[in-house]
Amino acid sequence: MGYNSSVLEELKEKVCLANLALARERLAVLTWGNASEIDRARGLVVIKPSGVPYDGMKPSDMVVVDLDGQVVEGRYRPSSDTPTHLVLYKAFPQIGGVVHTHSPHATAWAQAGRAIPNIGTTHADTFHDDVPVTGEIPSDRIRDAYEEATGDVIVETFRGRGLDPVATPGALAVHHGPFTWGRDAADAVEHALILEEVAKIAALSVALNPAIRMNPDLIEKHYSRKHGPKAYYGQRT
Amino acid sequence: MGYNSSVLEELKEKVCLANLALARERLAVLTWGNASEIDRARGLVVIKPSGVPYDGMKPSDMVVVDLDGQVVEGRYRPSSDTPTHLVLYKAFPQIGGVVHTHSPHATAWAQAGRAIPNIGTTHADTFHDDVPVTGEIPSDRIRDAYEEATGDVIVETFRGRGLDPVATPGALAVHHGPFTWGRDAADAVEHALILEEVAKIAALSVALNPAIRMNPDLIEKHYSRKHGPKAYYGQRT
Amino acid sequence: MGYNSSVLEELKEKVCLANLALARERLAVLTWGNASEIDRARGLVVIKPSGVPYDGMKPSDMVVVDLDGQVVEGRYRPSSDTPTHLVLYKAFPQIGGVVHTHSPHATAWAQAGRAIPNIGTTHADTFHDDVPVTGEIPSDRIRDAYEEATGDVIVETFRGRGLDPVATPGALAVHHGPFTWGRDAADAVEHALILEEVAKIAALSVALNPAIRMNPDLIEKHYSRKHGPKAYYGQRT
Amino acid sequence: MGYNSSVLEELKEKVCLANLALARERLAVLTWGNASEIDRARGLVVIKPSGVPYDGMKPSDMVVVDLDGQVVEGRYRPSSDTPTHLVLYKAFPQIGGVVHTHSPHATAWAQAGRAIPNIGTTHADTFHDDVPVTGEIPSDRIRDAYEEATGDVIVETFRGRGLDPVATPGALAVHHGPFTWGRDAADAVEHALILEEVAKIAALSVALNPAIRMNPDLIEKHYSRKHGPKAYYGQRT
Repeated sequence: MGYNSSVLEELKEKVCLANLALARERLAVLTWGNASEIDRARGLVVIKPSGVPYDGMKPSDMVVVDLDGQVVEGRYRPSSDTPTHLVLYKAFPQIGGVVHTHSPHATAWAQAGRAIPNIGTTHADTFHDDVPVTGEIPSDRIRDAYEEATGDVIVETFRGRGLDPVATPGALAVHHGPFTWGRDAADAVEHALILEEVAKIAALSVALNPAIRMNPDLIEKHYSRKHGPKAYYGQRT
Repeated sequence: MGYNSSVLEELKEKVCLANLALARERLAVLTWGNASEIDRARGLVVIKPSGVPYDGMKPSDMVVVDLDGQVVEGRYRPSSDTPTHLVLYKAFPQIGGVVHTHSPHATAWAQAGRAIPNIGTTHADTFHDDVPVTGEIPSDRIRDAYEEATGDVIVETFRGRGLDPVATPGALAVHHGPFTWGRDAADAVEHALILEEVAKIAALSVALNPAIRMNPDLIEKHYSRKHGPKAYYGQRT
Repeated sequence: MGYNSSVLEELKEKVCLANLALARERLAVLTWGNASEIDRARGLVVIKPSGVPYDGMKPSDMVVVDLDGQVVEGRYRPSSDTPTHLVLYKAFPQIGGVVHTHSPHATAWAQAGRAIPNIGTTHADTFHDDVPVTGEIPSDRIRDAYEEATGDVIVETFRGRGLDPVATPGALAVHHGPFTWGRDAADAVEHALILEEVAKIAALSVALNPAIRMNPDLIEKHYSRKHGPKAYYGQRT
Repeated sequence: MGYNSSVLEELKEKVCLANLALARERLAVLTWGNASEIDRARGLVVIKPSGVPYDGMKPSDMVVVDLDGQVVEGRYRPSSDTPTHLVLYKAFPQIGGVVHTHSPHATAWAQAGRAIPNIGTTHADTFHDDVPVTGEIPSDRIRDAYEEATGDVIVETFRGRGLDPVATPGALAVHHGPFTWGRDAADAVEHALILEEVAKIAALSVALNPAIRMNPDLIEKHYSRKHGPKAYYGQRT
């Protein structure tokens, strides 16, 4: 096996494990979630096959596509959400993995058309800003190239508001559900797990106090102690 | 074992597995759920016995009834909901399996007398329309042939609103709980699982935003990409 | 082992299993629940020891008390709720088992001071009426013989409203939590499980529609098809 | 191994088990929780390392710090919340263990800026008073020595209101989450578990009845029957 092949085989294994983690953490039931990771050097993305159950999924079931969405390797169709993943990889060059789920609390905020407000340190530890909800997709784009348009409205939401996709690694596609991303597929899964937990706590919080807001200094503190240049959370690496 | 018997034995196994899945997925506690499947060629329905716990349930415990509800085979009484299943099989010739549960979120919408609104793509992927709640059963029919009347109000609800039971494979019996159906018993179980998840997300959504509605074009898109003539979700079969 | 001893040993085993079921079904965390069963012929009650964890609990840990609350057998103190159990056994001669839990949804209705309304067939299948919440215990009785007073307000609630403890096998002690009962300890546990499920569905229902009520004929139907003289739910016994 | 070393090794084992219990009871996901215990005689605190996952955590991973926060033993950085733990140990000489989590319901009350009201006996059995929420931390202290300031506002909250930290072994750091404490690390974990359960039941209760309050005599009774000089709950020890 040549160097390139072995890199790709390793990527399939990582992406398969990330998809299995979505099911194990109950972030996705049935086939409702997908994870991918990109090989930036080769311009190839490894992603879950469409509509295939998690139970018994193997690395060899993963699909390899190029950045135009053409299947390069694999016997299955790629996830129907593949065009959304590709738009995110092209617009956000810093990211290496993407995850989409229908986890219940994050999906509820998406369906309600509300951003998840940054009202607690649990949120601020991972997401610097409110997790934004996208604008509506125009009907003509829903009918044509809908999945690509889903990626486009996420990117527009970040650019329009000057949001940093590394500092806030997730968004809610309105009426639809959460997309998260990270350094690699595993990191994107971790962000999907945190987003669901944060979405749940936020829903419980606003039921107890609809008006609550958090001191922006506290947001800065929590984000920067984990992610800033002087981060002191975790171990030196 | 003759041809007919072996078909029936296989059906009992499928129906038993479907009933066990209701318990495993926590869609039914104690004995609160039942699944059935029909052999259209022979006009026979295999269904769970009444009031028997899921733990230790075997294919040979299943009951076989004809379309008049007469027990053809089996040592137990059939589920007390059998007449409802039979009405649905007779009114909806396209369906092959029926499931009834008291899963908490779907039951709450039924008790509240509210249809589950189609306000997200998670819903639209499986249910083309709002999952309707039936009208009230008149008191004289409650006292006499109540379970048959439960099936009748479901059918009337679909006919009265011009709903397609294949495009929207489920309904809420008011004050009571969900009924779902599908190609076979396993498909009806999957729809029961999705309905509970959709009911939960919808309840969380309306708590966050009571007024939310979804663009009908988005509903069409999500339903048709999985189920329409040009479906592209999942694998070619 | 004489006849009487062997009956008592069997009872300890049943009561131990019932207490373990409370933990397994997550109706009680830590030591927050207790089950008992009565031997009517001998006037003896077997009950969980006080403050002992469920993990590793054995039949020989159970405590035997007479109807005055005197310990007849066992090396531990009986549950501090023992006087409540005894009041219920003395007032309701038809019952054979009692259970107390702090299961979250039933406890929330108790803390809110609201009866659980009979607004669905899931409720009516087991509880003929609203599950009542007791009145307040006067402060002098809180200070003196509080646990007995807890039993007394339950009994007063049933007598004052003409409720049948067999038809509605449970009550909410205000500010405190649910007590259920049944033919034996296992039956009381099943009622505790159903009460928690019914409490959860009711809370979800009133959030969706605070005004909902159910046709009383439907209540009669569901209760009587399981429990009436012409019951047809379950198997002939 | 000398006397002192063996005491410390035992403490590391207790603290490791307490941290693992946080994950097992789902009080902490990922690395979001920490438990510590103090050796009062030696003035040393054993605490979880920062940002290390629970899975595979060993006693030898624990970090030993003195009361100034200097690392005395261990190859990892201590939890970033260590200064908060130290403030609590110094201000509350009766306590031996401290726990911090982001358990969802307790965190929601903290984010909402509301104390958890003592509206039920489940609460009163463990927490004599409302579980208080701290005031805001001034912005200058957020920027400098934030974790110490978190401890300070908890202590100020208790002193300002005349609360007894033994009778009410927990507090909510506003916008952040719960801290609990106890005789040792295991006792603090048990209080964290009870706090989450109590927070959940309270949220469900106020949704059903926002105005509810409990008779103070009932609070006294429940607290004193478990913890007062005449306690009769549990076994004689």
